[in-house]
Amino acid sequence: MNGLILRDATSEDLPQIARFFRAIVAAGETYAYPEDLDDQGIADLWLEQPPGRCIVAVNAEGMVLGSAKMGPNRPGRGAHVATASFMVAPEAQGQGVGRALGIEALRWARAEGYAGMQFNAVVETNTAAVHLWQSLGFQILATVPEAFEHARLGRVGLHVMYQRF
Amino acid sequence: MNGLILRDATSEDLPQIARFFRAIVAAGETYAYPEDLDDQGIADLWLEQPPGRCIVAVNAEGMVLGSAKMGPNRPGRGAHVATASFMVAPEAQGQGVGRALGIEALRWARAEGYAGMQFNAVVETNTAAVHLWQSLGFQILATVPEAFEHARLGRVGLHVMYQRF
Repeated sequence: MNGLILRDATSEDLPQIARFFRAIVAAGETYAYPEDLDDQGIADLWLEQPPGRCIVAVNAEGMVLGSAKMGPNRPGRGAHVATASFMVAPEAQGQGVGRALGIEALRWARAEGYAGMQFNAVVETNTAAVHLWQSLGFQILATVPEAFEHARLGRVGLHVMYQRF
Repeated sequence: MNGLILRDATSEDLPQIARFFRAIVAAGETYAYPEDLDDQGIADLWLEQPPGRCIVAVNAEGMVLGSAKMGPNRPGRGAHVATASFMVAPEAQGQGVGRALGIEALRWARAEGYAGMQFNAVVETNTAAVHLWQSLGFQILATVPEAFEHARLGRVGLHVMYQRF
C-alpha cells in the first residue's frame, strides 16, 4: 500500500485501535480474547510496554489501519523467544497491511536479539493469516484440535507456529 | 503417599507455596517464570481465581507439599480448553504428590465441562513430568525447539501437551 507508515503506538491511538479490536473480536473468527473489554482493558492487553512494543500502521491521512504488539513469549527462562499479535481493520484487509506489520515485527525481534518467534494460537481456518506467516518463514509446529470456538464454523484448531532466527 | 489431603488453597497457604515456588523457579529447570517475584507477585500468578482454581496438597501435619492451579487456557473463544500448572516442594518429590494433583486437576476440569486440557510449556528434559502427564493421558503435540533456557543444560525444547476429554 502506498503511503503506509509504521510507527510506535501511543495512547492517542487507542480509540482507533479499540474500534477495530472490538469488531475483530466480535466477529469471532480469529482471536480468543474477551469480548467485553472497555478501552482500559484493550489498552492493558494490546498496548504492550517495554521490553515489548506496540506499533500501528497509518495511512497518509493518519488513519490507523492496523496494529501489532510484540515482545517476549514467556517471562524468565523463556524470554529469548518472541511472540507477536496482529490486527488489521476490516476495511483495510487484503492490502498488505498485515504483511507490513509482520515484516516489521520480525525485523524488530531480530534486532532485539530474540532467538525466534512463536505464535501460540493461529486459528487454522484463518488461511489468509496462516499463508502470510508461512510466506514470512513460519512453520506450523502443531495444531491443538478444536481449541477455538469459531463463530460460524464451530470448534476449529489453533496452530502453534514458529520460526527460528 | 498416605495421609495426603487435597484442598482449595487459601491466602494463608501463600508463605508455604512461595517457599517452594521460589526454590523451583530459582533452580531454573522447569518453569519460565520471573525469578524476582515478591509474595504478592506469586499470589497474582499462582493463586488462580474463579473460574479457575488453586489447590494444595497437604500432609497429615498440615505442611503444604505441592500446589496446582487450573482454569481456562485462553479467554473468550478458547475458554473451553483447560490448562493447569503444578509444583511439588523439592523435599516431597517422587512420592506421588504431582500425580495426585494431576488427577485432581483432570477430574475438576472434566467436571467443569472443559473439552480438554492443554499444557503450553513442559520442559522436555523434565522427564518425570513428561512421563507423568503421558501416563495420565496427555500427548506431546509439538516441541518448540530451544524455547527454554535451562540452568544446567542450556536451551532445550518446550512441549505442547494435550488431551481431549
